[in-house]
Amino acid sequence: MLMTDIIVKKRDGLKLSAEEIEYVVNGYTKGDIPDYQMSALLMAILIRGMDSEETLQLTMAMMHSGETLDLSKISGVKADKHSTGGVGDKTSLILCPMVAAQGVKIAKMSGRGLGHTGGTIDKLESFPGFNTGISEETFVSNVNNFGIAIAGQTADLDPADKKMYALRDVTGTVPSIPLIVSSIMSKKLAAGADVIVLDVKTGSGSFMETEEQARELATELVRVGKLAGKKTVGVITDMDEPLGNAIGNALEVKEAIEVLKGEKKGELLELCLTLGSCILTQAEIAATEEQAREMLIKGIEDGSALNKLAELVKGQEGDPEAVYNTDMLPKAPVQYEVLSDKTGYVKHISAKDVGLVSMQLGGGRVTKESVIDLSVGVILNKKVADRVEAGESLGTIHAQTLEKAKEAALLLRNCYTIVSEPVAKSKFIKGIVK
Amino acid sequence: MLMTDIIVKKRDGLKLSAEEIEYVVNGYTKGDIPDYQMSALLMAILIRGMDSEETLQLTMAMMHSGETLDLSKISGVKADKHSTGGVGDKTSLILCPMVAAQGVKIAKMSGRGLGHTGGTIDKLESFPGFNTGISEETFVSNVNNFGIAIAGQTADLDPADKKMYALRDVTGTVPSIPLIVSSIMSKKLAAGADVIVLDVKTGSGSFMETEEQARELATELVRVGKLAGKKTVGVITDMDEPLGNAIGNALEVKEAIEVLKGEKKGELLELCLTLGSCILTQAEIAATEEQAREMLIKGIEDGSALNKLAELVKGQEGDPEAVYNTDMLPKAPVQYEVLSDKTGYVKHISAKDVGLVSMQLGGGRVTKESVIDLSVGVILNKKVADRVEAGESLGTIHAQTLEKAKEAALLLRNCYTIVSEPVAKSKFIKGIVK
Repeated sequence: MLMTDIIVKKRDGLKLSAEEIEYVVNGYTKGDIPDYQMSALLMAILIRGMDSEETLQLTMAMMHSGETLDLSKISGVKADKHSTGGVGDKTSLILCPMVAAQGVKIAKMSGRGLGHTGGTIDKLESFPGFNTGISEETFVSNVNNFGIAIAGQTADLDPADKKMYALRDVTGTVPSIPLIVSSIMSKKLAAGADVIVLDVKTGSGSFMETEEQARELATELVRVGKLAGKKTVGVITDMDEPLGNAIGNALEVKEAIEVLKGEKKGELLELCLTLGSCILTQAEIAATEEQAREMLIKGIEDGSALNKLAELVKGQEGDPEAVYNTDMLPKAPVQYEVLSDKTGYVKHISAKDVGLVSMQLGGGRVTKESVIDLSVGVILNKKVADRVEAGESLGTIHAQTLEKAKEAALLLRNCYTIVSEPVAKSKFIKGIVK
Repeated sequence: MLMTDIIVKKRDGLKLSAEEIEYVVNGYTKGDIPDYQMSALLMAILIRGMDSEETLQLTMAMMHSGETLDLSKISGVKADKHSTGGVGDKTSLILCPMVAAQGVKIAKMSGRGLGHTGGTIDKLESFPGFNTGISEETFVSNVNNFGIAIAGQTADLDPADKKMYALRDVTGTVPSIPLIVSSIMSKKLAAGADVIVLDVKTGSGSFMETEEQARELATELVRVGKLAGKKTVGVITDMDEPLGNAIGNALEVKEAIEVLKGEKKGELLELCLTLGSCILTQAEIAATEEQAREMLIKGIEDGSALNKLAELVKGQEGDPEAVYNTDMLPKAPVQYEVLSDKTGYVKHISAKDVGLVSMQLGGGRVTKESVIDLSVGVILNKKVADRVEAGESLGTIHAQTLEKAKEAALLLRNCYTIVSEPVAKSKFIKGIVK
């Protein structure tokens, strides 16, 4: 088999065989196929496309490029969740304890943040002592004992994806449905869960700007998940503005705890209830989505969801007290209010730009090696459709110095578009693909 | 400017600006842009295309990537010729002396052969002592004194093309009209001639298999040549079988001399008369193509074309006697007849496979570093549409050993398709694009 022949085949719009796809993924992972041939093939795939069969085969080949997690020692139904990424997305911190409290096993591998988006692993490190690098043995025993563990992805899981993603990032070959699907699903399949729920974001702050693109991605993700034998559901949700109010690691943890305590309602809770009821019904723990929602709400009311978060923290060497006393979380020395210079209604908040404000404060990574400041970030006091008066606070900057806070304030004000007419809020949950 | 932005632009089918194209060519030539980004862009260009303006800008940027030849010290009209390549193509050896004998200045940079196709420079080295590596000074003075010089391409001419072609070769990005046009024309423009004639081959033995593709390529070559201010003509010619009868370096030189002596007519002469009359009319040495043909035929009849070849050889340290006495050319010790096992008509001769037979005999390069045997090759005794009797000779193998000759004979027989019905020969000159 020759790599050039495979490139030419896809370049000319033909379908690649399972053997050819396997040859490419193995050869590239081992270093036998050079970057310059792989990038030519990736561009051909992006432009010419791949059908569901090819995408499945690419996914499976990538999944088998490294180790796969064996969750067979964990009793019960194992669930995993993935989000296509967004600013202020602390959903996993809320959802995982919520469903684990109902008996679903959460054995989750999660990533760190890069650029303007955050990562669950970074956020969890806000709990004093929390260890995201636990061994596979501890990981499995924690899931068995507490029903939940969330750890950083090990280096040996899906090496093909790591190498391919790094190449795609610098060769303009990121926005391709088959390449996105195989990247997400190969990791999810390697992580071994039975039920996979995918939160596919749409809108200006997400990767798939139109609802149509997001639906296409969700459909293909679910199709490939099912073909691989997993119970898979996709939920299409709005990311036209940041999710919830907090952006920044410890600030997001605090907001997640507020939701788990039942102190905070709104879209963030709604999203967790929707994703959670998909998991509970797919896991056959609830018969209907209505029943699932009731169970999840009860778990918040009786404190079991919050207690499950404390168990997660304790199981991974963190101090569970911080779950009940959020003053123990990292806190920035300076809080600075960003006052509106206009009166009107919030039309739009640029999610990406808010993410960049947080990054500039030190809360995000510029490169993979950056050390991040868990305490800094932004609290949005006004969201889309809210009425705002001139002089009222749009948001609160949490910074290390007043100078940095003032710089960030200028940037944050520019993230807001304020108009004089009232603004209608668009639907938050756009659809569910099963 | 960012390379990824340029890749994304072309990926999405947009037009690149002159500045962007220049940035890419300079950055890639200098090594600032890595192969993996360039190959992604080349694939995007291949699939999305480039308009004539972009192709011209790419051509000019490549041309300026290294030195350009200054032919201003040469008086008169300087002409250059390029062929898209084929097996048995010894046209330059005939055409260049023919037109130089009529007063056109031939200052030609030519390449060596690689794989199954031969190179003019290799063929010229069949003349004892011939030096293809003459200095630029000698090159210019020879053209001034004798009207003709043919030298190997210097390392500093069009380095962008060398690097891009090597990358295209291993990334499935060769068959793209804008990339082919810029590769050919950047070299021709850097070589400085005023008149450029392009022999665009079509048919199974060529790069552009259909006549439509060849016409598209010829049209774009001529358009870019004219936009660059050069008198440019494209001639579309058949390459469904090897050109002429000889394949192999010294054997082709001998055949070229037979044409220049007027001993050999047929398609090879016809091609040289067509290309030559394009050059003479563009150079305004002849008023009409009819007049040009008459001049060229007269040059053969009065011996001036052959004498011009002798002047070329002498000017580059070769022995001109070999032009008049071809027994002085390298000669292989073994001649072996390949007898037909069928009676019928020659339907097809696979040009590429005949080229491979010659290569296997030692007449072609496997890698750039291979040393070639100038004496070996094949003489085709039967061509397409010829009647052949079982037991009659299809071709003669010229080899170093009987064993090698016998191996080659088996292969050569397989190059022929012989059918029982008479075969109509297709038109040889398919069209002229001005």
